[in-house]
Amino acid sequence: MNWEAFLAPYAQVVEELKVKLKGMRAQFEYESRHSPIEFITGRVKPIPSILEKAHRKGIPEHRFEDDIQDIAGVRVVCQFVDDIYTIVNLLRSRKDFFIIEEKDYIVEKKESGYRSYHMIIKYPVETIHGEKRIVTEIQIRTLAMNFWATNEHSLNYKYDGQIPGKIKSRLKRAAEAAFKLDEEMSNIKEEVQEAQRIFYEYKRKH
Amino acid sequence: MNWEAFLAPYAQVVEELKVKLKGMRAQFEYESRHSPIEFITGRVKPIPSILEKAHRKGIPEHRFEDDIQDIAGVRVVCQFVDDIYTIVNLLRSRKDFFIIEEKDYIVEKKESGYRSYHMIIKYPVETIHGEKRIVTEIQIRTLAMNFWATNEHSLNYKYDGQIPGKIKSRLKRAAEAAFKLDEEMSNIKEEVQEAQRIFYEYKRKH
Amino acid sequence: MNWEAFLAPYAQVVEELKVKLKGMRAQFEYESRHSPIEFITGRVKPIPSILEKAHRKGIPEHRFEDDIQDIAGVRVVCQFVDDIYTIVNLLRSRKDFFIIEEKDYIVEKKESGYRSYHMIIKYPVETIHGEKRIVTEIQIRTLAMNFWATNEHSLNYKYDGQIPGKIKSRLKRAAEAAFKLDEEMSNIKEEVQEAQRIFYEYKRKH
Amino acid sequence: MNWEAFLAPYAQVVEELKVKLKGMRAQFEYESRHSPIEFITGRVKPIPSILEKAHRKGIPEHRFEDDIQDIAGVRVVCQFVDDIYTIVNLLRSRKDFFIIEEKDYIVEKKESGYRSYHMIIKYPVETIHGEKRIVTEIQIRTLAMNFWATNEHSLNYKYDGQIPGKIKSRLKRAAEAAFKLDEEMSNIKEEVQEAQRIFYEYKRKH
Repeated sequence: MNWEAFLAPYAQVVEELKVKLKGMRAQFEYESRHSPIEFITGRVKPIPSILEKAHRKGIPEHRFEDDIQDIAGVRVVCQFVDDIYTIVNLLRSRKDFFIIEEKDYIVEKKESGYRSYHMIIKYPVETIHGEKRIVTEIQIRTLAMNFWATNEHSLNYKYDGQIPGKIKSRLKRAAEAAFKLDEEMSNIKEEVQEAQRIFYEYKRKH
Repeated sequence: MNWEAFLAPYAQVVEELKVKLKGMRAQFEYESRHSPIEFITGRVKPIPSILEKAHRKGIPEHRFEDDIQDIAGVRVVCQFVDDIYTIVNLLRSRKDFFIIEEKDYIVEKKESGYRSYHMIIKYPVETIHGEKRIVTEIQIRTLAMNFWATNEHSLNYKYDGQIPGKIKSRLKRAAEAAFKLDEEMSNIKEEVQEAQRIFYEYKRKH
Repeated sequence: MNWEAFLAPYAQVVEELKVKLKGMRAQFEYESRHSPIEFITGRVKPIPSILEKAHRKGIPEHRFEDDIQDIAGVRVVCQFVDDIYTIVNLLRSRKDFFIIEEKDYIVEKKESGYRSYHMIIKYPVETIHGEKRIVTEIQIRTLAMNFWATNEHSLNYKYDGQIPGKIKSRLKRAAEAAFKLDEEMSNIKEEVQEAQRIFYEYKRKH
Repeated sequence: MNWEAFLAPYAQVVEELKVKLKGMRAQFEYESRHSPIEFITGRVKPIPSILEKAHRKGIPEHRFEDDIQDIAGVRVVCQFVDDIYTIVNLLRSRKDFFIIEEKDYIVEKKESGYRSYHMIIKYPVETIHGEKRIVTEIQIRTLAMNFWATNEHSLNYKYDGQIPGKIKSRLKRAAEAAFKLDEEMSNIKEEVQEAQRIFYEYKRKH
């Protein structure tokens, strides 16, 4: 397999989506409104992780493009839980890609404590050999969800998905603390949003 | 006029086109081929320059969007004259924007000595209020053309378009030296392209 | 006052410190160790905020350089509370700036719930007119501390430092939730650090 | 040899010098003056090129740090020949590194046609294990010199330093065209500098 040629359009999609989502955030600030986007990150899945996933799920090489949906991945991180759904609605209204599937792990959180909103899209990208449509995963979460998930990801990696019971229950307590922080933040959300509106208005004028 | 709101989508188009053109350059390098793109720059026209152009050409505010075609501007700079036409062909084959007009100031150089290829496009950009189609100018030139044009631009600015005869003739001699450099480079082009192919191949393997 | 000339060396210090701290993070990753640095941000204080602070504290213009210590500000954000002290020790051992003062608002948190470690340094920066020594504030905090402080900052701004009692007590509850999250995270710290070590080792080899 | 650990401080020096030199350029623009710096690039020498050079010159591993002086390399590109000496003087007055050697290949151009100003410095860089002093090469050249040298570099690479006579003489003609362009540009230098001063002044006010 020529990995470089295979992965090049995925890297391009990640770059294009990052610029587009950063543009969305800038627009909210221009208009002196609370931006539902705190920051954006993106990555192409490393080759060993692709191979490991393919092996674990029994996916043959000619099915990688369709069946491994997170080779290109973009993450949108928000301040408040409500912001997640604002972003979901904005993404649904765009015409520069197609939504294939949505999974709401916030309403139905995973057994482990994982919370996040996932959207699988097909993104048309121009290459020097013509247009290609690339399957991409967009994850949308709060800062607290993201903080927790980053740690869980490291641990899962270490224990190869089999985190020992004792550590698992500590992780769950941390997940509850993250959840509690999101709830307390929701209680001051309207105040903070109003404060941000005033702040951007002020910045715009100076 | 709310300039910030007016210019925001232009800034977004410039960012998106820069990412897309840089992606094109990266693809050539992946494939161990001479990249026709040396570097890419972009800018949104400063407000005073927009107003000055509108005044000079008698364009009313409600016609800015259609009649001032270089509010969003992207420049592609190449090593060899032939590269310009390779890029023109690649841009013509893309489906993510529409070409409105093309002007070849290389075949027909301007009286001043100015050489460059201009392409006017309409680029559909998603905003938080829906899709907009933004007129954008893409300039394609060699390093030598760009070097010369940058200097001419400064001088035109200083003399308000009325460069004195003596300086004008010096500029023309510089334009001829730039043209001569492009010609001499064309004579070693095939050698250099072959050398670059070997270099990228090598870099890819290490 | 020529603000541009006054602020230029501050902007330069912020850029240099960001590059230096990002280098520190990269070095930890090279060496397959948990990096105590999650991310780094920096900013020059906006002119109206400088004027407002000068007015509030009665600082005359010729004392700005010495008495307003956060005109240049850099923030280092960590995953775990312990990481903060690792960074403090690393900064103390550097020879490219001088530490003037340190304030530990983690051991002694502010009445409002604010937690953070502050270091005031003098940083020698080369300008085209010779060397200047610029007072700069470095803030070091966890992700949870940073999340909370960002919200408090917006609210303080809105209420001009006089946050109403009801909102104040909600903010305090959120501060407690952030503190709780930091505590729960500390309980899985060693596990996560070990997992990251394995992860970087692996990445380095592939 | 642990290349990653060996090269990390070189990469750090390149980043720090790039930020410092970009800061110099910004300062000239703030002060509404022609900036002697057009752009800055930097790179760490690729491992195979280090090994090839060590082999060719008979340098043993424990002498790499002192005897291979271009492992860290920064390039400063200017518009006019005179700008090169302005930069040389600015670099000589800095206190954040030591100059070891200077070579003026403009006054004494190489047989091949190569023109450039080289400065070898020792740059003190802080690492997480303390301060290190890193030998670094700074190359200073005009746009035309750079354009020519880039092509020569590709060809030298291809022919392993033994460019055939016919191509060599074509390269020399191109070098003469580049030299001629630099000369013609010198003739309009004062005009262009004055124009740039007016332009930056204007930009600063809007």
